[in-house]
Amino acid sequence: MDAKPLDGIRVLDLTQIYQGPYATFLMAMAGAEIVKVEPPGGERMRQGVGDKTSLAFAMLNSNKKSLTLDLKNPRGKEILKSMAKEADVLVENFAAGTMDRLGLGYAVLREINPRLIYASGTGYGLSGPDRDMLAMDHTIQAAAGLMSITGETGGPPARAGGTPCDIMGGVHLYAGVLQALLGRQATGRGTLVETAMVETMYFTLTSDLSAFHRTGELPERRGDKSPANIAPYSRFRCKDGWIALICVSEAQWERILTVIGREDLIGNPDYGTREDRHAHEKEINGMIETWCRDLPRDEAYAIMRENRVPVAPIRTLADVRADPHMHERGMLQWANHPDMGDIVLPSAPIRLSSYATEDVRFFPGIGADNADVLREWLDMNDAEIEDLAAGKVI
Amino acid sequence: MDAKPLDGIRVLDLTQIYQGPYATFLMAMAGAEIVKVEPPGGERMRQGVGDKTSLAFAMLNSNKKSLTLDLKNPRGKEILKSMAKEADVLVENFAAGTMDRLGLGYAVLREINPRLIYASGTGYGLSGPDRDMLAMDHTIQAAAGLMSITGETGGPPARAGGTPCDIMGGVHLYAGVLQALLGRQATGRGTLVETAMVETMYFTLTSDLSAFHRTGELPERRGDKSPANIAPYSRFRCKDGWIALICVSEAQWERILTVIGREDLIGNPDYGTREDRHAHEKEINGMIETWCRDLPRDEAYAIMRENRVPVAPIRTLADVRADPHMHERGMLQWANHPDMGDIVLPSAPIRLSSYATEDVRFFPGIGADNADVLREWLDMNDAEIEDLAAGKVI
Repeated sequence: MDAKPLDGIRVLDLTQIYQGPYATFLMAMAGAEIVKVEPPGGERMRQGVGDKTSLAFAMLNSNKKSLTLDLKNPRGKEILKSMAKEADVLVENFAAGTMDRLGLGYAVLREINPRLIYASGTGYGLSGPDRDMLAMDHTIQAAAGLMSITGETGGPPARAGGTPCDIMGGVHLYAGVLQALLGRQATGRGTLVETAMVETMYFTLTSDLSAFHRTGELPERRGDKSPANIAPYSRFRCKDGWIALICVSEAQWERILTVIGREDLIGNPDYGTREDRHAHEKEINGMIETWCRDLPRDEAYAIMRENRVPVAPIRTLADVRADPHMHERGMLQWANHPDMGDIVLPSAPIRLSSYATEDVRFFPGIGADNADVLREWLDMNDAEIEDLAAGKVI
Repeated sequence: MDAKPLDGIRVLDLTQIYQGPYATFLMAMAGAEIVKVEPPGGERMRQGVGDKTSLAFAMLNSNKKSLTLDLKNPRGKEILKSMAKEADVLVENFAAGTMDRLGLGYAVLREINPRLIYASGTGYGLSGPDRDMLAMDHTIQAAAGLMSITGETGGPPARAGGTPCDIMGGVHLYAGVLQALLGRQATGRGTLVETAMVETMYFTLTSDLSAFHRTGELPERRGDKSPANIAPYSRFRCKDGWIALICVSEAQWERILTVIGREDLIGNPDYGTREDRHAHEKEINGMIETWCRDLPRDEAYAIMRENRVPVAPIRTLADVRADPHMHERGMLQWANHPDMGDIVLPSAPIRLSSYATEDVRFFPGIGADNADVLREWLDMNDAEIEDLAAGKVI
């Protein structure tokens, strides 16, 4: 096995919440050294509800080191600048302009280290009329157009579950940093890398934008399918849950009819083409519902799966967390954390066969690596480190 | 301006539909040479409904070259192998095992070119019990858990709009290829890069998984917010549309009360803390609705925005396509295509300040670059190329 792709890459990680931490988590799993710089009180995501650390923080901060540093303190600023001199990459997802106001923006740091790759992840980017809008996944889902195409027909626009915009922003930011590392090998210089969550969501609308262009009409919201003249293509209620199914070939259609006991309709011209089936969508969906409504979800799923129909169970979070497939592949693993108990920790969803995979290690305690990092990066001695602690700089 | 980060990188692009093409689109915009290998009839996404090319195909295939090649034809296979010898990267998103069955899998190609980076994007990955399941964005949304947390309370699980799983898979695949290119500079060898759509969606569930861990209960589906003890945090109906709003600080709460004319409630202990406000969620959401229901969406949005509240209009696809912010930033541009008319073409949502940005060029015609690519990559002469065309190999 070869060394990891990002071995030897030093990352100053000023990120918080989800977007930035996902980018630096992916860097950590690719072998980079991540020093998570937190205010002395710790990143706010550490606090879950009550005193418990949130699982969200644990998921996003595995394999990172923690250094506390007060960036509003002049000595704290100096230490950050000294570390920026030693770093390959700095990642932050503060609101646009925050680092400049701290006197720690790219314009300042590039002078200190021209090889530094400075990565900024924001909601709307570092330019444009919406630059300074406060952004969270919720408002980006609205601004990006995602909410307008999510929800039930005739119902209100709805948000997609989870925080797709934060994660989509984070992985694009990661890719931008990798691009910059490749570029630096030719140029010897760093660069500013910028991603805007609202822009990273655009391609998720592709099929809907395509339907809009074709018809000139805004596609109707559908909770069960995206705009496409395809049927069956929906969710189907079973005895104890749901399955999702889509039919994209004639062979699949015939297998579906066989499975649901309607071989009599094979070859029936009313359902002869994709368009014909779409014209009979309600009726066709009804036939499938009739078949599965008294079957357990997993049984209906297993039967359709055996018959090579594109199908999946609509899994709950409990199902997903325990998914045998992702556990067998090493994407997920159970771990017992002293404070948190049994938790499922994810790995990175990117695999390179000829490199060793990084074991997932628990998130660090607040400032757990203060001494080691200040010694290794800045050659500080114990007295200097104690002095910084006494001065509440770290 | 420096050369682009992926200048000189040659990519054999066997991808189709959305996931793979998004990965190679990002490579193209970073400066790589993308040769899109299509069956002689063209990738199926070229056909929209009727004869019109789908906008989806146009969006995902800008800045690529097109080479037609029949991979079932022995001469076609030989040409692909010869090209794999010249390529840095090969990307495909066929079902697991397809390339092996064609005799063109990684095991074969790595022998021909040990430096080759072979990237596979699938629904479930190249291992594990679900490896061979047919996968589309629709079924992955179900299998990944996204559908179970999308939709209205008491209603059925719903799909998120668009195709988030395809795009999330595609950008992770892109990042994997970049990791492999960085690794190759140290090792001199290529690798197999693998991503599974179902795994790339896991982190989008972070807040919901965190709530589930905290409470032990599956969070209730909410169409208006993710599970969090925060209020106001919802969508609000206006006279002619909707806004989305979230309040995450005391200062924001006071500004909201001022905006909606309820200064009288500032300091009222019933709403003193985040928890208090969450306990009065219905009532608080009602007050805001009362304020905005007779206001135009854009006016309600503008007022909240001026008052530094995290807010956004719930934009339609028409709004998003024409978004002045994304057009000013160069993420989006109008273009007039001879067959398709006026369309909006997106750029890549990743910016590196010290590199020239690639202009967005229209997708290629089927086989438009056959002669040029075969000459440049394989030194073929016109007679050889004509012979391949006559033999329907290209």
